[in-house]
Amino acid sequence: MNIYFACSITGGRAYEAVYQSITRALLDAGVEVPTAHLAETGVVDEERIIQPRAVYERDVAWMRSADALIAEVSVPSHGVGYEIGFALNLGKPVLCLHEQGRAVSKMITGNPHPNLIVRSYQNSVQAAELARDFFSTLHPTL
Amino acid sequence: MNIYFACSITGGRAYEAVYQSITRALLDAGVEVPTAHLAETGVVDEERIIQPRAVYERDVAWMRSADALIAEVSVPSHGVGYEIGFALNLGKPVLCLHEQGRAVSKMITGNPHPNLIVRSYQNSVQAAELARDFFSTLHPTL
Repeated sequence: MNIYFACSITGGRAYEAVYQSITRALLDAGVEVPTAHLAETGVVDEERIIQPRAVYERDVAWMRSADALIAEVSVPSHGVGYEIGFALNLGKPVLCLHEQGRAVSKMITGNPHPNLIVRSYQNSVQAAELARDFFSTLHPTL
Repeated sequence: MNIYFACSITGGRAYEAVYQSITRALLDAGVEVPTAHLAETGVVDEERIIQPRAVYERDVAWMRSADALIAEVSVPSHGVGYEIGFALNLGKPVLCLHEQGRAVSKMITGNPHPNLIVRSYQNSVQAAELARDFFSTLHPTL
């Protein structure tokens, strides 16, 4: 099982601890998460020096090889919005997680795509639980 | 000629004056801009009371009927990122405009799609000029 985790990089890192809670829960469950480093502290500086085209090609290749996408959408991000649509177009299941009370774009919350799930959480522990539950529905034998 | 203008609503309105400069330049040139109201002050409250599904269906219908999309991407937005990908998938030309010096997602700046143009501007007058130039290349006889 391979899950692409999408989160804000350029747009802000206020939810970095939640990103890490989600990726670590997935990794602990044996899921491959090619983008796990995007949750870590310091990634903004690391990504800044990579050519834009290289980031795009890398992320698209990871999305194509993933079984599903989990996006943390509490902080707005063009990249994450683009990736949600890209993954849905590829027929991948997509879970969007956001902190309860955060306003999320209606292009996400109002999107009736059958492969899209949007859930809110109250804290990073619950965010990780929702990610694990989503993973379990994809792979019920694990 | 019908151009879908995309800008941040939920994500922040710091560039609202630029949004208005762009939509007014297009409207003055005789372009139909179904989303022109999204550039106006007060739109956040107006949009808040509309059901998410209705916003999604409305915006998708407008994108399908548009000849092209212009997105202002200085402020991160999931919706705008989603819309850029959606319009490209429909084969529409897309222009992304951002203030010079603003960090924009590499999923946008590194995207090699032949229908995507990304340009920076120094002020709202130049943003409007870039929007008009883009419109002229789509419709060179006007």
